[in-house]
Amino acid sequence: MSGLQSAINYIKENDNYLILMHASPDGDTIGTACGLCGIIKSLGKKAAVACADEIPAMYAELTNGIENPDFEVKSIIAVDVADVKLLGGLKTYAGKINLCIDHHMSNTGYADITYVDSESAAAAEILYDIAELLGVKIDKYIAECIYTGISTDTGCFKFSNTTARTHYIAAEMLQAGIDVGKINRRLFETKKKSAVELERLVTNTLEYYCGGRVAVITVLRSMYEQTGTSDDDIEGIAAFPRQIEGVLVGITLKELDEGGFKASVRTHPPIDASEICKSFGGGGHLRAAGCRIKSSVAEAKSALVQRAEELLLQQGITD
Amino acid sequence: MSGLQSAINYIKENDNYLILMHASPDGDTIGTACGLCGIIKSLGKKAAVACADEIPAMYAELTNGIENPDFEVKSIIAVDVADVKLLGGLKTYAGKINLCIDHHMSNTGYADITYVDSESAAAAEILYDIAELLGVKIDKYIAECIYTGISTDTGCFKFSNTTARTHYIAAEMLQAGIDVGKINRRLFETKKKSAVELERLVTNTLEYYCGGRVAVITVLRSMYEQTGTSDDDIEGIAAFPRQIEGVLVGITLKELDEGGFKASVRTHPPIDASEICKSFGGGGHLRAAGCRIKSSVAEAKSALVQRAEELLLQQGITD
Repeated sequence: MSGLQSAINYIKENDNYLILMHASPDGDTIGTACGLCGIIKSLGKKAAVACADEIPAMYAELTNGIENPDFEVKSIIAVDVADVKLLGGLKTYAGKINLCIDHHMSNTGYADITYVDSESAAAAEILYDIAELLGVKIDKYIAECIYTGISTDTGCFKFSNTTARTHYIAAEMLQAGIDVGKINRRLFETKKKSAVELERLVTNTLEYYCGGRVAVITVLRSMYEQTGTSDDDIEGIAAFPRQIEGVLVGITLKELDEGGFKASVRTHPPIDASEICKSFGGGGHLRAAGCRIKSSVAEAKSALVQRAEELLLQQGITD
Repeated sequence: MSGLQSAINYIKENDNYLILMHASPDGDTIGTACGLCGIIKSLGKKAAVACADEIPAMYAELTNGIENPDFEVKSIIAVDVADVKLLGGLKTYAGKINLCIDHHMSNTGYADITYVDSESAAAAEILYDIAELLGVKIDKYIAECIYTGISTDTGCFKFSNTTARTHYIAAEMLQAGIDVGKINRRLFETKKKSAVELERLVTNTLEYYCGGRVAVITVLRSMYEQTGTSDDDIEGIAAFPRQIEGVLVGITLKELDEGGFKASVRTHPPIDASEICKSFGGGGHLRAAGCRIKSSVAEAKSALVQRAEELLLQQGITD
């Protein structure tokens, strides 16, 4: 019996579900939790969703009315949660999670039943199969949930994790009647005034090193104070420096509340981002990694740029 | 016989094709022209593409080696060209165009045979049917052409013109083996250093009026000079002011070489953008319109903001 069939059986045989999202919730954990909640309710069962952190306004329509159970919880499902640590304030559920549905290869297998499909661009893609196996028709609400998960985890079908299957599922969601223009305007094209101000300040910090091969931007706590913003308002910024033509290493330094800086490093081939971050006790993937550096901004910048330069030189890239 | 079948017959019965794009070429006219060229060549026939203006670097891989015919041209096809005026320097072909394949409802019917499918998000979508009806297998190159047309005309599947069919076709193109991450990085995620500088200058001109309901940005010729850029480097900027939360009227003023300003107006409901532009001799659509104003930047701004304010007041929007 495949992992997915075990998950289906679990859903069929139980009731009164609480579906947990990861902390700092994104479109995929929210879309998958809410979509699964909708699917389970379609079976005539009870379900609600929970998250340790507040749901960002752009997703509020999905969670509306289904946060916090008004029934006795008997079954706990976690979605898009690779590790119980990522539950944040809901870590108290660790050891009590019956089912986990995820797409992270790194899933630690903390649940009684785990189904991981690492070929899915988004956990929400897995709901498409779950609905089918449960015989649930995907209505407009469930379609909006699935589409939200998929489009946010793929950068609206832009990233290389997008597969033919991703597009087939999106097509089916559009057939279910969702208003894709409206959803995407909400997800991708609405910027808070204060966030625009913050972005302006951050863009003004852009500096180039190593003949334009390395670009660095800096986010200071004073910028949040000046614009009335927080870290949430600049979520995607780490992608920016690497987007500039000729840049192979994009570094984003964010000042931490507790002092020091969190560095997000994004690279293009042949530079290994995790190699840079490992030198500072961090890690990550080949093209996206992170680390924390306890020092002044000038020192953090200089240390990271120096390490990046070493890797560029190792590859024979000198301009 | 449907318009599409006439087009198919024309392609089957003739040879030595020159495929024309519109001037200031975008991803759809380039993708459709190159994709059709690939399809026609798959039939063992001769074909080449032509455009009055230079092909932007990000599309150069598609046109590589197929610009300008090295054979005697006997058949002329225009793609994604709604009006012969849009051919720019290739207007000399007016009256000699045998076939037109397009998705603009406003197509003027200038060709001997015209096939317009206004439900297609991109002209490139139509190639999918053309390949099938001609019995041509979509190879990786043709798939890249079709995908480029579709993804650029839909803002990478973000805009409301995206249909279920758009996603089905995209899925098929991915099946044909294209590297979607690489293509989209080239199309959407690579910014020229000089363009980043220009954007920074332009963003710094952002001003709000009417309690934040109207946002204005200004692009001066001196900014192009300072950064070594041109109008092409800031193509999508007109979308920016309207993306800001609370803004109902986004205005972009671009200084013209000949003096005065070109205004691009983008609105959210209930404001009619064309209504604003008509007051200055311009026009356009309900949510996107344009006009030219021969005056100083201060006068142009004040006149447009005043007209926008009148329309806001008419709708009872006073804050």
